[in-house]
Amino acid sequence: MAGPGVDTLFSPASVAIVGASRDPKKFGNVILKNFMLSFKGRIYPVNPNVGEIMGLKCYPKASAIKGRVDLAVIIVPSEIALETVEDCGVKGVKSLVIITSGFSETGATDKEKELGSIIKKYKMRAVGPNCLGVLDTYSGVDTIFNPQYKLNRPAKGPISFVSQSGALGAAVLDWAHSELVGMSKFVSYGNGIDLRESDLIDYLGTDETTKAIALYLEGLVDGKKFIDVCSRISRKKPIVALKAGKSEAGSKAAMSHTGSLAGSAKVFSGVFRQCGVIEVNDVDELFDYSRILAYQKPLAGNRIAVVTNGGGFGVLAADAIEEEGMKLAVFSAEAEKLLREALPDRVNVRNPLDLVGDADTKRYKDALDIIAKESGVDCILVILLMQVSTLGSDVIDAITEIYKDRKKPVIACSAGGNFTQLHMHALEKEGIPAYPTPKKAVKAAGALWQYGKIKNKI
Amino acid sequence: MAGPGVDTLFSPASVAIVGASRDPKKFGNVILKNFMLSFKGRIYPVNPNVGEIMGLKCYPKASAIKGRVDLAVIIVPSEIALETVEDCGVKGVKSLVIITSGFSETGATDKEKELGSIIKKYKMRAVGPNCLGVLDTYSGVDTIFNPQYKLNRPAKGPISFVSQSGALGAAVLDWAHSELVGMSKFVSYGNGIDLRESDLIDYLGTDETTKAIALYLEGLVDGKKFIDVCSRISRKKPIVALKAGKSEAGSKAAMSHTGSLAGSAKVFSGVFRQCGVIEVNDVDELFDYSRILAYQKPLAGNRIAVVTNGGGFGVLAADAIEEEGMKLAVFSAEAEKLLREALPDRVNVRNPLDLVGDADTKRYKDALDIIAKESGVDCILVILLMQVSTLGSDVIDAITEIYKDRKKPVIACSAGGNFTQLHMHALEKEGIPAYPTPKKAVKAAGALWQYGKIKNKI
Repeated sequence: MAGPGVDTLFSPASVAIVGASRDPKKFGNVILKNFMLSFKGRIYPVNPNVGEIMGLKCYPKASAIKGRVDLAVIIVPSEIALETVEDCGVKGVKSLVIITSGFSETGATDKEKELGSIIKKYKMRAVGPNCLGVLDTYSGVDTIFNPQYKLNRPAKGPISFVSQSGALGAAVLDWAHSELVGMSKFVSYGNGIDLRESDLIDYLGTDETTKAIALYLEGLVDGKKFIDVCSRISRKKPIVALKAGKSEAGSKAAMSHTGSLAGSAKVFSGVFRQCGVIEVNDVDELFDYSRILAYQKPLAGNRIAVVTNGGGFGVLAADAIEEEGMKLAVFSAEAEKLLREALPDRVNVRNPLDLVGDADTKRYKDALDIIAKESGVDCILVILLMQVSTLGSDVIDAITEIYKDRKKPVIACSAGGNFTQLHMHALEKEGIPAYPTPKKAVKAAGALWQYGKIKNKI
Repeated sequence: MAGPGVDTLFSPASVAIVGASRDPKKFGNVILKNFMLSFKGRIYPVNPNVGEIMGLKCYPKASAIKGRVDLAVIIVPSEIALETVEDCGVKGVKSLVIITSGFSETGATDKEKELGSIIKKYKMRAVGPNCLGVLDTYSGVDTIFNPQYKLNRPAKGPISFVSQSGALGAAVLDWAHSELVGMSKFVSYGNGIDLRESDLIDYLGTDETTKAIALYLEGLVDGKKFIDVCSRISRKKPIVALKAGKSEAGSKAAMSHTGSLAGSAKVFSGVFRQCGVIEVNDVDELFDYSRILAYQKPLAGNRIAVVTNGGGFGVLAADAIEEEGMKLAVFSAEAEKLLREALPDRVNVRNPLDLVGDADTKRYKDALDIIAKESGVDCILVILLMQVSTLGSDVIDAITEIYKDRKKPVIACSAGGNFTQLHMHALEKEGIPAYPTPKKAVKAAGALWQYGKIKNKI
């Protein structure tokens, strides 16, 4: 189980930046600045060569700090890493993020073993070495050493992301910011001397602000532990994983990258199925699936009702529903009658329900109100092509109201530029993720259905 | 063949806006404004009830205009559409965009036949009725009646797009603007009384500013004609198609939407293969494929070299290369030797070539320079994770120079926020499209390879 050392990794009351620097080009400067920008607790820069940095008193070593130190971020040169970590142990530091590289990834396996012994001796918990570390948008812990103008931090949100690759993690965080995907916690664990994916999933399973867990994995050191932890946590929270190195060529590349024995695609897909992990096939799908899983309840079945003002998108939705193993819901006779009464004659009352090009908010509201009451509908896919003059911004309120009143899962689909994106972001804030193509939206619904089956099976 | 009436549809010297209006809510107002904003030729508003609109003299009917009229845009009520078109014929108008609806789509098939006879009688060429019409970013023809603040027009560029669905077309145009995908011509042909997909593909095949043709199709009225035209044009220019209504459910929806006999997925995929059309499976792939096909020459083979500063993205690229039927290129002994000399010891010289996290522009430049000379490499995939502090903006210049000097196809992959996107747009301007995930980039390379086979087979 996770324990207090993991808690203080994400929510320390105090942090020592060991290897803090005055030089803006050094990681020790970037990371100190990160904490000064976002962290509310006490910050202790540690560097034996300077008296103060950016107005903060600097300590020669961690054990010279008088107050309690929950978390130490280690950014010192590899040569003095062991003695520095030992000193943190002496001080009683509870958890470590070890950014410093020059361990097993360069062949220095003995040195890494020694590091492991020191960490164990003092009962510390550690992320790293050779990693990007930890970001917590709520507590303000931020050991990401990429400049903020190159890597925007995502907004607070319900997704936590654990990545075996630092660079991929950094790119995903930055991308998440621009896609307005909100995140809670991010961990890149590098060589994984102590905490690895399974420990972190275990912790995130109990974390209140995490509603969905996303993973990037190349390989597993302990497959049994992964299965045990994921089987348990996936009952409580959805876990979505992107597995790299599934092909022969990719497996060799993974061996060279993280030293992972990647294992075949089939074996991994079997493992994921066994322990309730939802597998994705591309980086963007990590977002696409996590977003819907974090916001909406799992589907009770696979019957989707499609409401659209663009016929073409309706046809594509119908195609995707069949391709993805979902079903077009059949409207009840009562609903058909009500829809016929409420909608203009030229609207063909069937599913997908094409409200036609001049649909306004009232038409959406009327149709959704009837469909949301249908027991034969497990999920509503609302397609909004916002380019038309008849459709106003208030359609967002209408959809949100129906979603909140009816408690029926609602997914949106809308393609377009600024005007469209503005409205889609408004929907997303209300818990209704929007996807740019019907296929992506239907795949997201498929993930909700898959998670429904995972939850119910156990 | 296309003929002069199709030319004047896209590049008229003069246009009559028949049904021009003073009311900003009317399509006749929006379309007149569009032309006033972007069209350089003569504009004649036509409306019997007003003397002038927005400072332009208004004519009671097209035949009352004294000068030549190349194109008439018909926006009048359905009731007077036939006599209005007849009057255009009398006037000697060469081509028509008929926005007006209320024909076969509402069951008025006789009326549509009559409209067809009038158009034929006067040897006019027509797009519509019941359509969004034509956008030409070069000539400024713009019959799109959606407000510009809701539907941004894409920038000038090498892709032309023909859509059987107006609303889908509108969404794609707007999306293209925000993705900075440049377009030349767009046509939504609605009921297709005269010009349909095949005629338009035929015309675009001869159009100088069109380097790739994108299609959205639900069904074909004349399959033989489509095959004939595409077989001929696909030798000259790539054609990319998204076919909707491939599933049983989608086929029914297409019947209801455009009255198309959609036909089975297998039949259509066979037709596309036969006539050299590259098929895509989602709306975003229309962009992804068209962009690369419009800018770069087809691949001579399927051997890809991957250069990256993020190991994880390299692993994913290797997976995608195997999955998509491409191959990881094998570096020559000479290249391996040169790479070892040029790169730091910790870089493992293999493909994917991971330049590791602290790679700078020089490292990219050195590696690309060696790889671009390899005869065993058909395409270079450059992965740039721009979040790291060591990688500067000048990497864009380095890649562009190598691409221009070596004439080897180069595709980029980069995920991230504002900083990343700024640089990816800079690359795209130089003809190097950038994709957010390795899989998308490899699929695009696959399309280039597929097009190479299409060109060489014939």
